Amino acid sequence: MNHVRQAVILAAGMGSRLKGVIEEKPKGFLQLGNKPIIEESIAKLIGFGITKIVIVTGYSSEYYERLKKKYPFVRTIKNQRFENTGSMFSLSIVKDLIDSNFLLLESDLIYEHNALQVLNNSKFNDCILLSGRTSSGDEVYAGIKENRIVNLSKNLGEIKTLGGELVGISKISYDLYQAMINHAEKQFRKNQQYQYEDCLTDVSKMKEINYEFVEDLAWIEIDDKNHFKRAVEKIYPLVQKRDAEFIISKKISRNVLLNPGPATTTDTVKHAMVVEDICPREKEFGELVESIRKDLVRIVNGKDLFEAVLFASSGTGAIEACLTSVVPDNKSVLIINNGAYGERMQQICKNFEVNRIDYNIEWGDPVDLRTIESILSKHKGKISHLAFVHHETTVGILNSLELISKLALKYNIEIIVDAMSSFAGIPIDVNESNIHYLISSANKCIQGMAGISFVICNIDSLKKTKDYRRRSFYFNLYDNYTFFSEHNQMQFTPPVQVLYALRQAISEYFIETEEGRTNRYTELYEVLKNGLEKLGFKFLVDDRFHAKILTSIIEPDDDNYNFTEMHDYLYKRGFTIYPGKGAKQNTFRLANMGEIYKEDIVRFLNCLETYKKLKAIKL
Amino acid sequence: MNHVRQAVILAAGMGSRLKGVIEEKPKGFLQLGNKPIIEESIAKLIGFGITKIVIVTGYSSEYYERLKKKYPFVRTIKNQRFENTGSMFSLSIVKDLIDSNFLLLESDLIYEHNALQVLNNSKFNDCILLSGRTSSGDEVYAGIKENRIVNLSKNLGEIKTLGGELVGISKISYDLYQAMINHAEKQFRKNQQYQYEDCLTDVSKMKEINYEFVEDLAWIEIDDKNHFKRAVEKIYPLVQKRDAEFIISKKISRNVLLNPGPATTTDTVKHAMVVEDICPREKEFGELVESIRKDLVRIVNGKDLFEAVLFASSGTGAIEACLTSVVPDNKSVLIINNGAYGERMQQICKNFEVNRIDYNIEWGDPVDLRTIESILSKHKGKISHLAFVHHETTVGILNSLELISKLALKYNIEIIVDAMSSFAGIPIDVNESNIHYLISSANKCIQGMAGISFVICNIDSLKKTKDYRRRSFYFNLYDNYTFFSEHNQMQFTPPVQVLYALRQAISEYFIETEEGRTNRYTELYEVLKNGLEKLGFKFLVDDRFHAKILTSIIEPDDDNYNFTEMHDYLYKRGFTIYPGKGAKQNTFRLANMGEIYKEDIVRFLNCLETYKKLKAIKL
Repeated sequence: MNHVRQAVILAAGMGSRLKGVIEEKPKGFLQLGNKPIIEESIAKLIGFGITKIVIVTGYSSEYYERLKKKYPFVRTIKNQRFENTGSMFSLSIVKDLIDSNFLLLESDLIYEHNALQVLNNSKFNDCILLSGRTSSGDEVYAGIKENRIVNLSKNLGEIKTLGGELVGISKISYDLYQAMINHAEKQFRKNQQYQYEDCLTDVSKMKEINYEFVEDLAWIEIDDKNHFKRAVEKIYPLVQKRDAEFIISKKISRNVLLNPGPATTTDTVKHAMVVEDICPREKEFGELVESIRKDLVRIVNGKDLFEAVLFASSGTGAIEACLTSVVPDNKSVLIINNGAYGERMQQICKNFEVNRIDYNIEWGDPVDLRTIESILSKHKGKISHLAFVHHETTVGILNSLELISKLALKYNIEIIVDAMSSFAGIPIDVNESNIHYLISSANKCIQGMAGISFVICNIDSLKKTKDYRRRSFYFNLYDNYTFFSEHNQMQFTPPVQVLYALRQAISEYFIETEEGRTNRYTELYEVLKNGLEKLGFKFLVDDRFHAKILTSIIEPDDDNYNFTEMHDYLYKRGFTIYPGKGAKQNTFRLANMGEIYKEDIVRFLNCLETYKKLKAIKL
Repeated sequence: MNHVRQAVILAAGMGSRLKGVIEEKPKGFLQLGNKPIIEESIAKLIGFGITKIVIVTGYSSEYYERLKKKYPFVRTIKNQRFENTGSMFSLSIVKDLIDSNFLLLESDLIYEHNALQVLNNSKFNDCILLSGRTSSGDEVYAGIKENRIVNLSKNLGEIKTLGGELVGISKISYDLYQAMINHAEKQFRKNQQYQYEDCLTDVSKMKEINYEFVEDLAWIEIDDKNHFKRAVEKIYPLVQKRDAEFIISKKISRNVLLNPGPATTTDTVKHAMVVEDICPREKEFGELVESIRKDLVRIVNGKDLFEAVLFASSGTGAIEACLTSVVPDNKSVLIINNGAYGERMQQICKNFEVNRIDYNIEWGDPVDLRTIESILSKHKGKISHLAFVHHETTVGILNSLELISKLALKYNIEIIVDAMSSFAGIPIDVNESNIHYLISSANKCIQGMAGISFVICNIDSLKKTKDYRRRSFYFNLYDNYTFFSEHNQMQFTPPVQVLYALRQAISEYFIETEEGRTNRYTELYEVLKNGLEKLGFKFLVDDRFHAKILTSIIEPDDDNYNFTEMHDYLYKRGFTIYPGKGAKQNTFRLANMGEIYKEDIVRFLNCLETYKKLKAIKL
């Protein structure tokens, strides 16, 4: 469900029943806390992620004009005929300023944050917010039928099945807005006092408009002195209390990410990011980072001989760090390319003028060891490093650490492994596999958050690079390493909260154990693959060469199949799937990394099956 | 307060009263949920941030040995004489494995997460956890006097003032542990059955041992069948319920960071990071990033002519991106260096072989415009860019955007401004100030979290770099920019959660308004400076050249003054101060950025005054 980013506030009215409480000001300038209620509403909307607010002004519009100067994301438009027109006329004049779905609010509302959350989380695109009884004396009632709004009326007698009271906050799709405008323009010919509630009632006969009901919602519309009194004494304090609680106890729904990372994380990893503010130059933080560095090495059994160097960057940053720091000017690196990430290594070397020899393979095919050997033998003495991707997520293939490293050992060549999507998902022993540099990032199989990448370096190898010409600054591996050694800190400001999440994620990895995680991932893969096979899907990579962490599925040759449409259908239901990327056949991809379980895959397969039937896709 | 990272679990005992519930296994292997209680305890400790657990085994030690294989952070040591010795003997044998403060636990405990939190948050270094009455029939009572533990006993008659019941989880400093060992080694000569509770009682006479009391703590020690029944029926379900709630409603204390960023953030920014897992290649996420990019430009009034390019990196990364991407091979950049960040720009150019001309000034002194002009005039036609730091936090100086940019305009030179610690803290108008590239990061005056840096680029200038030789890959400015234009996404995986925090932080900036934030910061600076002046401190930078966001204070010439000691004293009280960095005189530094208020500065000054008196520091 997309987050709403725009809001329209109707603020043209006079508030004639509030004389004595508020003088010439418009109702939005009533004040309960330290700023007018319109500014509280704006703060709430902005805090919620709204980035454009259109206020329709009328009476005493100059007050709202001043707001526009204060807040750059506020726009105003004046309903010049506010005295003789209804709220629908006000809503109709914003049509050139609105370009997507929006929240519609009234200006004289006080409401708790949850009101916005409920609308945003609603699966309905057109959604009216209803509450339980308020007995305000000014109620607008909503008549409903099943999930739909049937009518809105101040007269309870006109309501057949009562759905609740209209709060005055609605989520309106661009489509519905267009329908409302079209309908209203006809109405305006006879009745310019037409209200937006009436327009919603009329249009609901042609278009499905839904609602969300919250029995105990803290809100009030302030139309008269009694309302104001009730707001001061009861509603406003309640709203403040609930909003404070809301921040620290928000409930978030669980998505199943089947893209190849960032992966689904646990709630404990998510919440591990909420920590006291801390300066990362503090000793305490240094200890945290040190424990992470040690444990990353521990995961690949590199104790004593290896050290982890962390970077504040995506995984690509650590790849760049390694390639540009360890290959000397007078030597070359042999790069195996059987996917986008192998190709990316070549591009990095190209930009930095690192000498390289390419071994290119069609994306989807396994490496041929004899070819590697013949290249190594042909360029004997010239090649210092061999770089390849362990699990190439472009297709899901696993390039054999064991076999390739044996060859490298024979030719006395150092190994650089991009283990981005295998580290902590597939058991790796850096000593046994003769690895010199192993690269990964926090947001893949280790199940932390994106923002940290790392190179696990054989210390002896790294020390040889001490006097190499510096090709870069931020990503020089040796300089970053010595900073850790000397200061027990990262050289440049780290993403503090991402490191707390990583600390937690590593701990959870150890709790699950290497065997536990490998087994879980393998089972996920098998359940997924078998289910897809039953549905008739075909795969790009043979099981023999498979990493079993990502499956490339050959796209159906059927006009009814459309990746984007399928993606959107599944996304709405909590599953994120991923397109293909330049493989030898057209594919889409499903990863099975992250904190997901067999049941998630089963639910996903059911959902996919339903979609396949719905669209009559032939396989 | 430092987070505890080590734990010792006493698990040597036999559990003879549990025959029938558990056979030959040790008590830690009682099972209530899906794993033995010792593994639940380990998971809890690890989840809490403990990275080393030492288990003292004895009876049926082979069970614990197996745990060691499963969990790489677990160490075991066997008390060979477990049948004839008490718990203090067990505790004494870990002395070579422990090198800092630790949590001491018993193996047969079930407890809620909050137990660990309370000990960790306690201001006391040596802290025994006490609870309200449990009526377990096996209680150990704690006698107290003021904040101190006086004795621990199973005999209530021996207790003068009851502080509560001993839970069996304690935080022990390395100091206290040494004192316990020394004392115990004397006792062992006559009594090897000496218990650790008795040792604590004895040592409490010589050393202050404190406690924390939690009336309603969910915990139980399982010593017999009745305990087990109570654990199954009542305590275990309660622990599970509370732990689940704990994750999403943890309360964190507020620190006042006076270091020059990462700065103090609001709770709403902190909690904005807790979001549903999302793949950053989704349209929805693209919209979030787009709104951030637009708003960053809006803050410096660069609408239409400027675009923001974001990087997953520290601020230094964005500096590297800019310098290495926009200066052509046949031109030079003039770099003004009056602080560490100017010097860093020179270092970046050196490593990347970007032609440069240096203008070096003593750190603490303002720029001399005539010197700049003479350099520009001397190298006319050769210099394409002028790069400098706006607010140089090395000393707190403000290099005048207005005056320097006027000169650059005269010589038709593009301006690169490192506005790391001024963006959103000092009003900047990129058009008025003739800026071409402005660089900052998420964790300074904009008050977000670290992990994102950005360059706000004049689009026409940036487009000229399209065909420049690529000096790098990850940080190429133009390539990252085109990726945004073409895909509405970041080129490389972004730190997703940091961007949600940044979205919230930007919103809060707009709510506070440019004027509001500038005024607040200026007031903070003035209150701070006046307070420090009253205390007798002297400053490095004259008010005329001051950014008013960071104050460099000249270190007192007094043997009683010691920065580290002063830092630690203040840190314990919630204030983080910062050392100096190569200025022309020795200084320490206090920044006044972030979500802090006048009252915080007043509290800080009081604290500093107390410390100054305590140490009799002469100024």
